[in-house]
Amino acid sequence: MDIHIQFCTEPISRLQPYPPQKEEYGARVEFYGTVRGSELGETIRGLRYEIYHSMAELQIRRIIEELIVHHPCGAISVVHRHGDVLVGENAIYVGITAAHRKEAFEMLSAFMDRLKQDVPIWKAEVLK
Amino acid sequence: MDIHIQFCTEPISRLQPYPPQKEEYGARVEFYGTVRGSELGETIRGLRYEIYHSMAELQIRRIIEELIVHHPCGAISVVHRHGDVLVGENAIYVGITAAHRKEAFEMLSAFMDRLKQDVPIWKAEVLK
Repeated sequence: MDIHIQFCTEPISRLQPYPPQKEEYGARVEFYGTVRGSELGETIRGLRYEIYHSMAELQIRRIIEELIVHHPCGAISVVHRHGDVLVGENAIYVGITAAHRKEAFEMLSAFMDRLKQDVPIWKAEVLK
Repeated sequence: MDIHIQFCTEPISRLQPYPPQKEEYGARVEFYGTVRGSELGETIRGLRYEIYHSMAELQIRRIIEELIVHHPCGAISVVHRHGDVLVGENAIYVGITAAHRKEAFEMLSAFMDRLKQDVPIWKAEVLK
């Protein structure tokens, strides 16, 4: 499986080149997690994310390699911002290609659950 | 819920403007169904899709309105090509925004199953 992991401080483009399209992939699913305008009922300006880079990358790779056994996909790309992410901006992008949509959907859902649980990425501060 | 439905003959761009982003949506999921290079083990050039337009639009709207009760989302955009769609090109795009990812993922998966079952869109010919 083709795995692409990236941490960045600049905005995540809606035209992510990853994962690349191939003739055998009939499904491409993409997820953008966006910072919402309020946190715990209060209006906010954004969120500050901190990432323990080397550990986060290792952990993401492990999760993918574990999940791929049950959800065979072709490629996955994970891009996560760190630093200040303003309201309306994307904090995360996940793109998955697979032969069929079922595997891609299941992989995406399972991956996001595990990412939130097991990867050292956290909201360090609420920007008001 | 904001519903956008479109049938087109031109390629589906990866820069679909729909559904629009809003401050209350923390999740955006997008699906592209792409024509694969083989059909029943044989190499193909593409697929010709036919759509019974008025009925398909009505049916898509009905399915969404039914599913939204259990999967509350903000907006959904469905774009489907008809006519000849070559290998590597997208036959369908579905974009969904929601407050949280869970609803968006469930809506996408449920919608695609229902679309395949209940909507008068069919592969009329295999292009060799």
